[in-house]
Amino acid sequence: MIRVAIAGASGYTGVELIRILSQHPQVELKAITSRGQAGQRVDKYYPSLRRHCELIFEEPDPDSLAQRVDLVFTALPHQAAMDFVPELLQRGLKVVDLSADYRFRDPNIYENWYQPHKTPELLSRAVYGLPELHRREIHSANLVGNPGCYPTSVILALAPLLFGKLIHAQSIIADSKSGVTGAGRGASLTTHFCEVNEGFKAYKVTEHRHTPEIEQELSGVAGESVTITFTPHLVPMSRGILSSVYANLKNGISESQVSEAFQSFYLDAPFVRLCGTEVPSTLQVRGSNYCDLGWRVDERNRRVIIISVIDNLTRGASGQAVCNMNLMYGLPEGLGLNTAPWQP
Amino acid sequence: MIRVAIAGASGYTGVELIRILSQHPQVELKAITSRGQAGQRVDKYYPSLRRHCELIFEEPDPDSLAQRVDLVFTALPHQAAMDFVPELLQRGLKVVDLSADYRFRDPNIYENWYQPHKTPELLSRAVYGLPELHRREIHSANLVGNPGCYPTSVILALAPLLFGKLIHAQSIIADSKSGVTGAGRGASLTTHFCEVNEGFKAYKVTEHRHTPEIEQELSGVAGESVTITFTPHLVPMSRGILSSVYANLKNGISESQVSEAFQSFYLDAPFVRLCGTEVPSTLQVRGSNYCDLGWRVDERNRRVIIISVIDNLTRGASGQAVCNMNLMYGLPEGLGLNTAPWQP
Amino acid sequence: MIRVAIAGASGYTGVELIRILSQHPQVELKAITSRGQAGQRVDKYYPSLRRHCELIFEEPDPDSLAQRVDLVFTALPHQAAMDFVPELLQRGLKVVDLSADYRFRDPNIYENWYQPHKTPELLSRAVYGLPELHRREIHSANLVGNPGCYPTSVILALAPLLFGKLIHAQSIIADSKSGVTGAGRGASLTTHFCEVNEGFKAYKVTEHRHTPEIEQELSGVAGESVTITFTPHLVPMSRGILSSVYANLKNGISESQVSEAFQSFYLDAPFVRLCGTEVPSTLQVRGSNYCDLGWRVDERNRRVIIISVIDNLTRGASGQAVCNMNLMYGLPEGLGLNTAPWQP
Amino acid sequence: MIRVAIAGASGYTGVELIRILSQHPQVELKAITSRGQAGQRVDKYYPSLRRHCELIFEEPDPDSLAQRVDLVFTALPHQAAMDFVPELLQRGLKVVDLSADYRFRDPNIYENWYQPHKTPELLSRAVYGLPELHRREIHSANLVGNPGCYPTSVILALAPLLFGKLIHAQSIIADSKSGVTGAGRGASLTTHFCEVNEGFKAYKVTEHRHTPEIEQELSGVAGESVTITFTPHLVPMSRGILSSVYANLKNGISESQVSEAFQSFYLDAPFVRLCGTEVPSTLQVRGSNYCDLGWRVDERNRRVIIISVIDNLTRGASGQAVCNMNLMYGLPEGLGLNTAPWQP
Repeated sequence: MIRVAIAGASGYTGVELIRILSQHPQVELKAITSRGQAGQRVDKYYPSLRRHCELIFEEPDPDSLAQRVDLVFTALPHQAAMDFVPELLQRGLKVVDLSADYRFRDPNIYENWYQPHKTPELLSRAVYGLPELHRREIHSANLVGNPGCYPTSVILALAPLLFGKLIHAQSIIADSKSGVTGAGRGASLTTHFCEVNEGFKAYKVTEHRHTPEIEQELSGVAGESVTITFTPHLVPMSRGILSSVYANLKNGISESQVSEAFQSFYLDAPFVRLCGTEVPSTLQVRGSNYCDLGWRVDERNRRVIIISVIDNLTRGASGQAVCNMNLMYGLPEGLGLNTAPWQP
Repeated sequence: MIRVAIAGASGYTGVELIRILSQHPQVELKAITSRGQAGQRVDKYYPSLRRHCELIFEEPDPDSLAQRVDLVFTALPHQAAMDFVPELLQRGLKVVDLSADYRFRDPNIYENWYQPHKTPELLSRAVYGLPELHRREIHSANLVGNPGCYPTSVILALAPLLFGKLIHAQSIIADSKSGVTGAGRGASLTTHFCEVNEGFKAYKVTEHRHTPEIEQELSGVAGESVTITFTPHLVPMSRGILSSVYANLKNGISESQVSEAFQSFYLDAPFVRLCGTEVPSTLQVRGSNYCDLGWRVDERNRRVIIISVIDNLTRGASGQAVCNMNLMYGLPEGLGLNTAPWQP
Repeated sequence: MIRVAIAGASGYTGVELIRILSQHPQVELKAITSRGQAGQRVDKYYPSLRRHCELIFEEPDPDSLAQRVDLVFTALPHQAAMDFVPELLQRGLKVVDLSADYRFRDPNIYENWYQPHKTPELLSRAVYGLPELHRREIHSANLVGNPGCYPTSVILALAPLLFGKLIHAQSIIADSKSGVTGAGRGASLTTHFCEVNEGFKAYKVTEHRHTPEIEQELSGVAGESVTITFTPHLVPMSRGILSSVYANLKNGISESQVSEAFQSFYLDAPFVRLCGTEVPSTLQVRGSNYCDLGWRVDERNRRVIIISVIDNLTRGASGQAVCNMNLMYGLPEGLGLNTAPWQP
Repeated sequence: MIRVAIAGASGYTGVELIRILSQHPQVELKAITSRGQAGQRVDKYYPSLRRHCELIFEEPDPDSLAQRVDLVFTALPHQAAMDFVPELLQRGLKVVDLSADYRFRDPNIYENWYQPHKTPELLSRAVYGLPELHRREIHSANLVGNPGCYPTSVILALAPLLFGKLIHAQSIIADSKSGVTGAGRGASLTTHFCEVNEGFKAYKVTEHRHTPEIEQELSGVAGESVTITFTPHLVPMSRGILSSVYANLKNGISESQVSEAFQSFYLDAPFVRLCGTEVPSTLQVRGSNYCDLGWRVDERNRRVIIISVIDNLTRGASGQAVCNMNLMYGLPEGLGLNTAPWQP
């Protein structure tokens, strides 16, 4: 049994981790931390968890965790993660970090879009936790930077086509739409029911911080520098991301070559399902770790449109984090994650 | 392994059964039938099920089912069930029927509220499948009439108080609110998104057919005839029922006696969670087989208000049906049903 | 032209007042106040109002308002209203107060459910602003206590039956369901989209402060003391209240007597629409000042069930406030309020 | 007073027309037709309209209409419009047609994307009813082809930039998202609440029939042939369209030139509101005839992103139709349409 803790367990990614880990056959969840809720039983805070988790939120304490667990999922805000993760690593713990703090290889990019990095030396040790791209490195990592939700959906949509050099790398536009859990559980006017309900909006147009994360990974796959346009939107629903991704096809590339690229790239991927021209809906992956992909070629102007759907809390955060833990311990990638999506 | 089939598997209770059974450790799902979808793969029809179920809908054929399975879940419309269930029983199959056709002991009541019954003689053999009331009879039954969704939520709210004779049996009002999956998957103006969304309404006031079903079971528990007022409402959400149940307390009955009645009645119930005065929300049971119950006494006019929440598709239909199957085979009541609710 | 101001204009009832007043043919909206937003243009804060209102939020100042306006709508929190309203009255202004501070005739009841009252002597001068009950007194009032949203829906459902002595006054149960705007615009976990969406819950069971307000008015109509059980619920939608109201019919009272009572009581009411046994949905009154009423008799246990729907922001707050202003100035009750509801 | 009728008045655009026309000071609505609902009072069918419209649906009869009205709004399905509109024109009536049948100048384009056209000779007489582009021609038209909902939002987003030659005409991608009223009121699985709610999906990728309509108008403005990629999506909300439109800026074009283009193009447009870099939400135009536009330049790859929002039923259909009627009769463009949007 792997003994694990969750640091920062009171938010939506935290409770999603608890939900998943409570049914994982090889995990014992030993501790959950939360500064704000310390001392409170988690099933008082989330009554859905009664009979599934009886832990009490505790203050984060690296020494105490080191005595009790093997691995920590850190679901802390950016910057708070940077303070805490090194403490855990020093004590010999493995870490899957759900913040952005360990996703970048180049500290300059991180610092341009976020803030100064306190432990840039750790960035080269950290592995970007997208199994379809970095399965082997994750297997031997002690520190995994768990991907952002939007990047997961966009990178998986494009990797096969950039890898196969089927599209122009500078022509990419990713128009993404997310449910509201992506904004976290903090109370704000932005997430007030009546400000979201019956409305649809774009936000952070041209300036969302997931842009460089997507570009880092796509550049790696493409073998050349990729710059994209990325626009996130807010959908009046709780869970789910759909990314509509556009790119110009290179001369002579056909729809069947596009399809073959997807099929060969994801041949053994347990959590990618290919839908071909039947483009997917977010409903078909809700509550699961799947990324479902569909695509069509617009022959009139030689573009390919890829539709990529995930559950932002599961595949876009906590499910993928558990996947990464499985790989770090040599377990089957999908252990504890193989339940069917929630429909309807 | 129990070999099972689902008849009428293309609706919402059907797909919920497939979702649950696909992760049940003691079940092999061998066949699914649907007249309308016969010949189609279920994971084409419900893409969420890809990699979880590869069965093809087939025409319902009792002989063929009898050769391949031990038990059939019949998720057919009222009246269609009456035609099919006897065929299955004759061939030695066990049946859990999700229609109303085998829920009533008295054929007259059924006929007053529904239509003529074709096999009234079977009603005395059928067991009403509410485990908290009829666990033992279910264990030895071949035919279980699986309870309606509203009745499940209302009966569980009142059984302890009527059993303990704490309330006036003729004072009961049940004001229930359901998500839209309760109306089934058939396309109609009633379930059109824009007719439901941003609205709230009551329907079938004073004439909903779940009324006599609730009364039958409550009368049994109370040991006297119970007549209730029942009003269903439609909530703009997919899953969940909340019933607000009102009754007049008998003289001298205190809030603590009410609490004790709930605690002793549900002492060993794996799927009832008692919340006391912290009344529950439907969100905390979504996707699960739980019924969560809270209550308060209004001392100003000596009424007790019980708030009861379930997921109408799981506890109110398919989850409870699997529970009944477990009991029929002597398995633990919660086998295959022990995942945490979906939140958020 | 009536010159008016709105104090506390930045919340949902404030912006609803601006929306309505901006199309009122006899009103000039001269000032809007908000401590939090002072200095900001309202159409920056609510972009929907561009080209409809160009006012700038100002600090509340009774002297300044007295020089510019005739009447003030105070949309302040309870207690803040008590501080501000007397200042306005002293300067000769008329006031329609949307808080609870001037709704009660008996200061003891207010103090039992709210807090100490600072100007109890004003309570006898204030008129409860429900036109269907107090049209004449409103006409000559300087201070109107605008009714709460739930009370508006419940009182209108019961007044004809209590006035006609058709029901037992102690048998009343009001089960009410409200959209989320009823909780105001303040950011909190309670109104977070993902805590509300896809869920349904009751709150403040047995202890909601609208209870004594309903009882005061019903007692007045009935000519005897009325004590009710009132349970509010939260619906995942923005606007609308539906109240399901239950009462025991007196001996010999028939459904047609019930219908006649409604028809004669609301004979000349421009904003009550009677639906008979076709019980109404909240969607049919959205954005309007209507209260639509339907009813049915449950002969099996001699109860009447009344279904009452309003838009909580319009009829339950700002529309009714404008109605009261119209009456205070001898204008037609519906002036500026006669647009059709929003459907779909 | 203009005497008008609505043919095909039972759908969502029909009831929206009734809502708007019922408060228009220069219109008398004399007749509404519907084959399906003939004989029924409209306020029985749409209870929201009680006290606002007491008409009875009648069978469509051109002779009868010609005796009673001056203008007909035809809200019929494509193809049905083609049969009925010529009958009306022959009898000297003016027509605003809300179908696609009279939007195209080139019958070949219509026939490629729709079906054979029965009266192609009328196409040259019909005017495309987008006031910002064709105000003068509408003024003298007898037949207006009212624009599609998506085209309205996309064309208004791009016209200033194509007119000013600031963008590459072949680089345009329009990623549009619509509420569910856009799918009409017909019952189908596609519009079932539980198939839409909590999900987000794209549909008709590369093949939606609004594509050539957008291209026709953009080509006209640009003075060159424009081919676009257009992807529609379905948002779980009732009303609203947001289009995110992408184009490559020509060399040397700056963000301020983009802003100036919008400002000069829409200088006198009563129903276009410019938001600059504060990109708009659909909520701020709900229930109104506004198109709100915001834009940003992505300097990293020299693209402009325009966010365009409308209410699909008002600006995208019925409100714009009334606007066109106003222009046809020399009335102020906004007469009867000047109420503030619905928020929240």
